[in-house]
Amino acid sequence: MAGGDSTPLLGNSNNSKGYALKSVFSSVTGITILIFLVLFFIFVKYSTGDVGSEYMWYIHVAIMIWVGFGFLMTFLHRYSLGAVSLNFFSSCVITLEAVLILGAFYYSQEDHNAGEHLEVKLDIGLLIQGLFAAGAGMISFGAVLGKISPCQLLLLMILEVPFYAVNAYLLIDRTFGARDVGGSMGIHAFGAYFGLAATLFLSQRGTGSEHIRNTSAYLNDVTSMIGTIFLWIFWPSFNAAVAFDGLRYVAIVNTVVSLLGACITTFFMSALLEGKLNMVHIQNATLAGGVAVGSSADLVGTSPGGALLIGTCAAILSVVGFTYISPALEKCIGLKDTCGVHNLHGMPGILGAVASAFVLASGNCEGSCDRDWEGFAYQLLALLVTLGIAIFGGTVSGYSVSLVDAVNGGDAVDYAFNDEAAFSVEV
Amino acid sequence: MAGGDSTPLLGNSNNSKGYALKSVFSSVTGITILIFLVLFFIFVKYSTGDVGSEYMWYIHVAIMIWVGFGFLMTFLHRYSLGAVSLNFFSSCVITLEAVLILGAFYYSQEDHNAGEHLEVKLDIGLLIQGLFAAGAGMISFGAVLGKISPCQLLLLMILEVPFYAVNAYLLIDRTFGARDVGGSMGIHAFGAYFGLAATLFLSQRGTGSEHIRNTSAYLNDVTSMIGTIFLWIFWPSFNAAVAFDGLRYVAIVNTVVSLLGACITTFFMSALLEGKLNMVHIQNATLAGGVAVGSSADLVGTSPGGALLIGTCAAILSVVGFTYISPALEKCIGLKDTCGVHNLHGMPGILGAVASAFVLASGNCEGSCDRDWEGFAYQLLALLVTLGIAIFGGTVSGYSVSLVDAVNGGDAVDYAFNDEAAFSVEV
Amino acid sequence: MAGGDSTPLLGNSNNSKGYALKSVFSSVTGITILIFLVLFFIFVKYSTGDVGSEYMWYIHVAIMIWVGFGFLMTFLHRYSLGAVSLNFFSSCVITLEAVLILGAFYYSQEDHNAGEHLEVKLDIGLLIQGLFAAGAGMISFGAVLGKISPCQLLLLMILEVPFYAVNAYLLIDRTFGARDVGGSMGIHAFGAYFGLAATLFLSQRGTGSEHIRNTSAYLNDVTSMIGTIFLWIFWPSFNAAVAFDGLRYVAIVNTVVSLLGACITTFFMSALLEGKLNMVHIQNATLAGGVAVGSSADLVGTSPGGALLIGTCAAILSVVGFTYISPALEKCIGLKDTCGVHNLHGMPGILGAVASAFVLASGNCEGSCDRDWEGFAYQLLALLVTLGIAIFGGTVSGYSVSLVDAVNGGDAVDYAFNDEAAFSVEV
Repeated sequence: MAGGDSTPLLGNSNNSKGYALKSVFSSVTGITILIFLVLFFIFVKYSTGDVGSEYMWYIHVAIMIWVGFGFLMTFLHRYSLGAVSLNFFSSCVITLEAVLILGAFYYSQEDHNAGEHLEVKLDIGLLIQGLFAAGAGMISFGAVLGKISPCQLLLLMILEVPFYAVNAYLLIDRTFGARDVGGSMGIHAFGAYFGLAATLFLSQRGTGSEHIRNTSAYLNDVTSMIGTIFLWIFWPSFNAAVAFDGLRYVAIVNTVVSLLGACITTFFMSALLEGKLNMVHIQNATLAGGVAVGSSADLVGTSPGGALLIGTCAAILSVVGFTYISPALEKCIGLKDTCGVHNLHGMPGILGAVASAFVLASGNCEGSCDRDWEGFAYQLLALLVTLGIAIFGGTVSGYSVSLVDAVNGGDAVDYAFNDEAAFSVEV
Repeated sequence: MAGGDSTPLLGNSNNSKGYALKSVFSSVTGITILIFLVLFFIFVKYSTGDVGSEYMWYIHVAIMIWVGFGFLMTFLHRYSLGAVSLNFFSSCVITLEAVLILGAFYYSQEDHNAGEHLEVKLDIGLLIQGLFAAGAGMISFGAVLGKISPCQLLLLMILEVPFYAVNAYLLIDRTFGARDVGGSMGIHAFGAYFGLAATLFLSQRGTGSEHIRNTSAYLNDVTSMIGTIFLWIFWPSFNAAVAFDGLRYVAIVNTVVSLLGACITTFFMSALLEGKLNMVHIQNATLAGGVAVGSSADLVGTSPGGALLIGTCAAILSVVGFTYISPALEKCIGLKDTCGVHNLHGMPGILGAVASAFVLASGNCEGSCDRDWEGFAYQLLALLVTLGIAIFGGTVSGYSVSLVDAVNGGDAVDYAFNDEAAFSVEV
Repeated sequence: MAGGDSTPLLGNSNNSKGYALKSVFSSVTGITILIFLVLFFIFVKYSTGDVGSEYMWYIHVAIMIWVGFGFLMTFLHRYSLGAVSLNFFSSCVITLEAVLILGAFYYSQEDHNAGEHLEVKLDIGLLIQGLFAAGAGMISFGAVLGKISPCQLLLLMILEVPFYAVNAYLLIDRTFGARDVGGSMGIHAFGAYFGLAATLFLSQRGTGSEHIRNTSAYLNDVTSMIGTIFLWIFWPSFNAAVAFDGLRYVAIVNTVVSLLGACITTFFMSALLEGKLNMVHIQNATLAGGVAVGSSADLVGTSPGGALLIGTCAAILSVVGFTYISPALEKCIGLKDTCGVHNLHGMPGILGAVASAFVLASGNCEGSCDRDWEGFAYQLLALLVTLGIAIFGGTVSGYSVSLVDAVNGGDAVDYAFNDEAAFSVEV
């Protein structure tokens, strides 16, 4: 929190240092806006619609994206402004881009007369799909948080959306008919492994967990809890937003129960493994229950006890990940995962896919599923395809982005986790 | 806020100090989870249901429990993490426990065939009832905040739920048919007097208002206002969540008006009594209007002017409580009430019960009540029974919990209001 | 953030310094409550009603008023408590006053039998209208933030409501039939120019942008973002709350799109003009899209592309305002606008009125409008009348309030942006 910090900042003596925002970032952003304007005027029309309850789901998911992810990432004591601001900015870019791309996919699915041209019908349902894409993007952002420039972030997010859309729409929705109502695979695992692949190419030497500013401070742990608590409260809406009406009820109940179990288990595991309560666990692993129940939330075969078990296992996995697996991955393959998205979204997302496969295989779905072992196989296949596209996309995108926008005459370690590099503030 | 604080902390030189989380707390928590899992698999089934508006009330009440109570209690400048995190954790435990106990009560009320065995039907309405129990628990938490270990807190909360359930269900709902839609009695007065009785047994010497860390700091007053403002905005939902459909409208309007009056009156009283605006009053007494209108919110005989008067009186009572009554109680009977729950929930809860009795006695309820002086008498009787169960339960539970988990080789004063005792952070 | 600040505060050595709250402020507030109580008991009745979706809009707008405006203004590092607390307090006063005044207007519009006397029918719709008035008030508050005493603020807000009501009700609703569903004119432009006129009379020498405490600090920029993000998320509800049912859908979609564009454009403009990202821009200009699309949100002729263009232009205008226009106005005419409401609400409000005029003139409204160039002219006339009433009202009110409650034996510069002057805290 306090004054007297002598960490190597960029220094007020040299105000010209910092990322090259005036030239590169503003050009790329300006062009992006212009393209959005042109495409919107040509292709986007209102859909007929009715506010109904759809808007409630939209608002709930929006709170998760901008309040939830935004404040969760303010834990870095010298990068809080970057966390909440760049989450704000890049989620807007992704939402508009995803609305265009997914809207075009939906259009292509309908029958059309010859000569009719592409029309994106903008309704609240499409906006919710746009927010889901932003969710995947913000998970990826968590892996590279504090280590890339605003321009690199913008490009990375722009590149992620087509991969996300292809995976979410063509593979999961169409070919495999996989069940993934809350996006354990399509949003959480996808976003995590995309970001993890990208961070391998984007993280400079010296910007891992040993970095002096890659850490929290007392009041930042409080502002980070704003994000955690809002994510935790609204997660049932994330998993129910696009469920069929008759299955929303069970999606909500399963998600609430899973999250209750995950929160209690996180405190248990944190005390057991470390002898003290660790805010990193509380801020993250408590949410793993929402991730892991995502694919099976609307399968009534899940049962309330099953949902509680999923939440419990997810939190165990997540705390073990933070305590043992992340340090090992950083040491062995140099994987620098600032927010630990592997522990909150990656592994719990895989757990969710596997759990949903078993629920389907149990054949105990009372009308909401009828695929048995075929369903089991397709869930796992969809998971593998998701992981493949995510890792391939993250690799391509991360490598591409690493070519642009090097630090502006300085050392990457000085720029890392440092709001002074992009914001006109003294931190 | 600032650096240079030389209060006696546990000290980094001795990292082994702190509560015994690894052994005792993690064992109790682990067993709790196991019991929940077993009971859920055996007894809990989905209820058929429909999302409808029920989910909106659930979300609103959840925001009050986790955002509202959680952040309101972050005012302690060295115990903010404990406040928001342990509020998070113990509310989850209470919700699951209350769902099981209240669900069993509801089951016992229905007709069943011989041989059929207990089944808890989990629906959103039952989850809301679980959150109400968590509300009562968090009020009790406010009385002992910062003075007990996480393990003591967990046990205290586990013990509170059966007393809460017996009071809420058997006495208020069934025997007396008391009107208490917003829980002035069953939630606020119950939670406050349970916690106050418990704190008499759980507060060590030197952990009262004179404690050097039992105080706020500048930015903690801001984060605490997050809690206040969210509680204040969503309070109408708390009072309307379980009202009959036709009476929800009036419950909302009455609560809004009462809260508007309480806020303005708090500023008036704070300036009048102390010559300056006191953040403790603003964070707490502004909410007394929601507490005090709880029992009578759905009685149309209340009238908008009556609701405004109730809010005004509640805020006067609350500010007087903070300024005169709490210091007197601490001096005379050693009552150490960290958050002043007596002023926000205790006295305004009693005021609410009495006000509702008079509204019923006025006989002016246009269909929503018809009990006149009989109703008056039953309200007061229900209040007395609530106070009795709360004080008895708080005494038994507080005394029991005081027997376990003494501080781990140190002085209670060093551990009090000190996040270092349970969290792996340097504060 | 940190300690060691040696700015000239009031000093602990002289605790008697500070505003005269015990005498003047508490008297005015006490009388205000008494008048509200009397008027409520005489005139206010419940309306019959049904919760429906109306309550959702109420809650959303309430979040904007108390969370949004309240936390947005916590950016001042020594006046955070005043910002969030006095926003809380004065919004309550305005809401009750506006309910009475607007309720009387609505009554006067209906047919009544001879001898029947005035009755304010309190329903959730009237409460929403009260919150809109509070919104206008909080915008005006932003212009004078930190420079006037609580008592002056209370009087200024009490005086603003009748001007607001006359403008909103008689002129816009009745005479001109102007389209202003989201209040670009009636709320944003009105509130801004009322406040700007008032601040000319209320700002003492030395309390402009050069004041040592008229600035943010690191964690205050984070708490301020709580306000920004909640305002940004819930703004679609602000613009749709009082739209006709069939037009709410389009009002939501237009506002979302405009805000997405405004956020991206703000980052573009901030980087382009200043070479770094400026938190003042991010906290404010990102919201200009919500302001500027307010008048035309429910005009389907707007088109999604049109809404995106409006948001883009609004953000450009707003960032240019913060960077060039505000400093120029402060230098040339001594206009001290603490929060820059001219850039967030003033100019974007005018832009919104003009944009809506052109949409109406395009005649392309598919049933939701049919006024063509007559509509164009009436929109601009309504804008001029709004500006006239706002500036006249702000001048009269600002001058009147400047006559009361001078600083209590001290220098205005010491009191400015200083929570110590009104709160019992050491900042």
